[in-house]
Amino acid sequence: MSEKVVGILGGRGGQLGRMLAASASLLNVKVVILDSGEHAPAKQILAPTAPHLAHLDGSFADPDKIKDLSKKVDVLTVEIEHVDAATLDEIQNSSTGRALAIHPSPATIQIIQDKFRQKEHLKSHGLPISDFLGVESTVGSVEDASQQLGLPLMLKSRTLAYDGRGNFVLRDAAQAAAAISALGNRPLYAEKWVPFTKEIAVMVVRSANGEVKSYPVVETVHKDNICHLVFAPLRSRDASICHRARTIAENAIKSFTGAGVFGVEMFLMADGNIYINEIAPRPHNSGHYTIEACETSQYENHLRAILSLPLGSTALKVPSAVMLNLIGYSSSMAEINKVVDVAINTPGASVHLYGKSECRKGRKMGHITVVAPSDAELRKRLRPLLQSLPSSSQEEVDLYAPEAPAPGAGFSDPNPLVGVIMGSDSDLPVMLPAARILDRFGIPYELTIVSAHRTPDRLVEYARSASTRGLRTIIAGAGGAAHLPGMVAAMTALPVIGVPVKGSTLDGVDSLHSIVQMPRGIPVATVAINNGMNAGLLAVRILAAGMPSLIDAMDEYMKTMENEVLTKVDKLQEVGWEKYQVNRT
Amino acid sequence: MSEKVVGILGGRGGQLGRMLAASASLLNVKVVILDSGEHAPAKQILAPTAPHLAHLDGSFADPDKIKDLSKKVDVLTVEIEHVDAATLDEIQNSSTGRALAIHPSPATIQIIQDKFRQKEHLKSHGLPISDFLGVESTVGSVEDASQQLGLPLMLKSRTLAYDGRGNFVLRDAAQAAAAISALGNRPLYAEKWVPFTKEIAVMVVRSANGEVKSYPVVETVHKDNICHLVFAPLRSRDASICHRARTIAENAIKSFTGAGVFGVEMFLMADGNIYINEIAPRPHNSGHYTIEACETSQYENHLRAILSLPLGSTALKVPSAVMLNLIGYSSSMAEINKVVDVAINTPGASVHLYGKSECRKGRKMGHITVVAPSDAELRKRLRPLLQSLPSSSQEEVDLYAPEAPAPGAGFSDPNPLVGVIMGSDSDLPVMLPAARILDRFGIPYELTIVSAHRTPDRLVEYARSASTRGLRTIIAGAGGAAHLPGMVAAMTALPVIGVPVKGSTLDGVDSLHSIVQMPRGIPVATVAINNGMNAGLLAVRILAAGMPSLIDAMDEYMKTMENEVLTKVDKLQEVGWEKYQVNRT
Repeated sequence: MSEKVVGILGGRGGQLGRMLAASASLLNVKVVILDSGEHAPAKQILAPTAPHLAHLDGSFADPDKIKDLSKKVDVLTVEIEHVDAATLDEIQNSSTGRALAIHPSPATIQIIQDKFRQKEHLKSHGLPISDFLGVESTVGSVEDASQQLGLPLMLKSRTLAYDGRGNFVLRDAAQAAAAISALGNRPLYAEKWVPFTKEIAVMVVRSANGEVKSYPVVETVHKDNICHLVFAPLRSRDASICHRARTIAENAIKSFTGAGVFGVEMFLMADGNIYINEIAPRPHNSGHYTIEACETSQYENHLRAILSLPLGSTALKVPSAVMLNLIGYSSSMAEINKVVDVAINTPGASVHLYGKSECRKGRKMGHITVVAPSDAELRKRLRPLLQSLPSSSQEEVDLYAPEAPAPGAGFSDPNPLVGVIMGSDSDLPVMLPAARILDRFGIPYELTIVSAHRTPDRLVEYARSASTRGLRTIIAGAGGAAHLPGMVAAMTALPVIGVPVKGSTLDGVDSLHSIVQMPRGIPVATVAINNGMNAGLLAVRILAAGMPSLIDAMDEYMKTMENEVLTKVDKLQEVGWEKYQVNRT
Repeated sequence: MSEKVVGILGGRGGQLGRMLAASASLLNVKVVILDSGEHAPAKQILAPTAPHLAHLDGSFADPDKIKDLSKKVDVLTVEIEHVDAATLDEIQNSSTGRALAIHPSPATIQIIQDKFRQKEHLKSHGLPISDFLGVESTVGSVEDASQQLGLPLMLKSRTLAYDGRGNFVLRDAAQAAAAISALGNRPLYAEKWVPFTKEIAVMVVRSANGEVKSYPVVETVHKDNICHLVFAPLRSRDASICHRARTIAENAIKSFTGAGVFGVEMFLMADGNIYINEIAPRPHNSGHYTIEACETSQYENHLRAILSLPLGSTALKVPSAVMLNLIGYSSSMAEINKVVDVAINTPGASVHLYGKSECRKGRKMGHITVVAPSDAELRKRLRPLLQSLPSSSQEEVDLYAPEAPAPGAGFSDPNPLVGVIMGSDSDLPVMLPAARILDRFGIPYELTIVSAHRTPDRLVEYARSASTRGLRTIIAGAGGAAHLPGMVAAMTALPVIGVPVKGSTLDGVDSLHSIVQMPRGIPVATVAINNGMNAGLLAVRILAAGMPSLIDAMDEYMKTMENEVLTKVDKLQEVGWEKYQVNRT
């Protein structure tokens, strides 16, 4: 591996350095961390006497210590962007005698650590951001801004702002003086209020020569301005969002210099527009999930980027993941331990405690990542974790981890894997057996009416959004001309199962031929006339292609069918065929 | 989390302790390792001054040091089974004043560390093992054994044998003296030669109260008696093997006392029989893959077991994984670094270097785990890694990482995801377009003839083994009575796509109705008459349910189709409909 030594300017929490060091140790990469405090998280996995890892005591804000560190390493990187960029710049310019790389570049850190300059930079590169204005720390200037950008107005410190600190929401111009005082008379700027529907984020890794790779788009949920939950991947009705968000994030990071991973936080608007909120030039809380869920974690990719190694695959290796931050609730670990106890009983959950010696309210003490074979299963696994949080209201629990309806309850699941649709409510008796089968196998589904001829727009929206909403297969029933299954198949890449419904004439052969005789290019998986049950069973078999546990469940189902027939064999033998009552259902 | 302190008796390599300590640090579990040598791997991630991790210098063979360690901890566990079990027993019996748990129990270690006693124990519990005999270190005794058990004969040291050390294959009774001397005049026993077809292994985690959970069955490949490759999960033609192997492994571990993970190595015979080879009472090389590939790693589950926490899920979270050991080839790391450089360029590969200060021939320096969405993709990813090994012959590379045939090559892939079968070679023209589509999407498949009526036994074997061989869907084409798709569907839980082939009478409606009108319980996904192409496209859509990248590929394919038609729109406009030449294919 690389012989280069990596220096990390340790930041406030220490957990990013700790996870970076853990990644480095797997590659035999030598790391030196500049960190203060005896109980810094990174210290707990770093042995000062070990050949591969070392420690330097001191603050990331002390120029002399940074210079000391720079002499011991080949590559310098940061755990926090609020470092002394001027010192880094000076070190960069004076290190002519040897090759010292600083990533991200001091120039990039300088732009990003001043949020007003960051916005100006993004604007000058044509990237989508909401309107903003520089303001003076005077009541008049703040009032001017509120007139230009409207109320409510987001007032922010230009520097040293994170986790909501340094933000003030001005709801009335009369609050101007209070806002200036609350923000500590620091240099300010104002942002037009963004009434977003969702917060989303994309991690991007950039090599020194400008190559970028983005991770999947995630949904982030903040609570008290601190990252609370991160869902990967984002599910949405608008199929274009993920592509657009990744393109924006990649273009944003291409506009900077230097190597490493960057977290790009964005707002998603009701009209589908996306604005960049802010950028972090380092591994980011919204990328913790990559450790368990992606082919290469953000930490390893950060190391690869700053060491000029090839960037690793950013693909998800599991279908669904969620990260839950463990934020201190008090000075005791008791509340955290309660959540961890639940996690230990949750399949797919990985606990990351940061080893911080003291718990404090609002302090990031650890995180839990849960992976699952589907969104519905993920939210089922997440639910008891949310319930165990002392700060969760029932509403919050319901919002982010909706309970799957009980089998047989007959209501659509909010995170369905299968869509069961029919052209008319008269098809319901034929389609209900499909729903019953999905209930029996515990598969989340939605059931609704989509008529190809009477609701053509609904058909288009349903089919086009099916895949990005997380559906994996669609069962469509229709009678007569029976266009629904084929038209849905023409507008989605998902497998579509067609159920020909028997009408009052032609015995269903009309529907059968309409559904099965699709032209080359667009297949419909057709089952027997009126056989909704088989459509449900086929959906289960299709899902089994990605969820091996369903193979066992289907094997067992088939074994049960076999036994039912064998029971009849015995009964026929016992009763005699003259007296045998045939049960026709 | 648990407040208990875990003590680890460090072993020869140190990597197991290191990985165990890494797992412990995520749970804030305090660990003390007894280890000798300044550069022990575990030391490199353990900070002696840190509150959560500590180190004790000394050998795991030194009774005083073990006693020292036992005083500092609440739970004692081992990285190697060749420890002084008598001392552990003494500590266990004398620690009446406080609750010290030793896992696995000294009794278990005592049985397992003496391979002859281990065999006797397994035999007495009715577990399947090959015949064996205790032998004296005399020529006469060895000759007697070779007469009783036959030649070749496996002679083994009863103790301190691992990675093939302490084994001697006696091919001729005249070698008896040489064997005794080669085995260092230690206590011996003899095992009947086992001409296995595959070596398989199962990791089992056992709680102190006897609950067991097994990990998936893996195939292990040894080279020079050292674990070389581990493939997860095992693929086999015999659908019963995985269930039987897990049951044997679970029953074996139930027969011991104490908690922790155990590696159960087994031989798979040509007739499907399974014999236990040997058991390791600790995290095992054949379980390294669990770190990236399973919901809970073997290390975390070992900690959970010995700390009396609930056992974690042993399910795979990815479809396929392989572990490649990085064994030293010389005193230089150059060869290892070459493999690691290839791994860095391999999607899904995770590198684990153990940080050992010196490389030696035969020393375990690290391992690489590769995950992938299918076996074929896994072996494609593995191939360049094997090629980069200095010791790999081309034969070995071909054996374990068979190259997928180039798209369009028309030969069956050894790791197919799709089976394309037809009742007769006359169906080939209809089915070839299905194969062409799979080629186009880069999906590995096999194509063969299975006739329901003329080769009924082949039909049964094909359908029954399809899922455990790794197939995820089957395309079956048939004409006339067309029983093939439905009969295959009756004997597998996989989705079966039926292609009705048009015969010389009835226009294919006979085949269509035979295939589509399946009874309730067994669905066949029927496509249009003679439309093999749509069967291929449906298979791609079905696979997309478990491989999201195929959704994008199918979207692109549909976009291309759309553009082809739009081009014709333009051409029709340009040429005029009177002169337009219709292209009928």
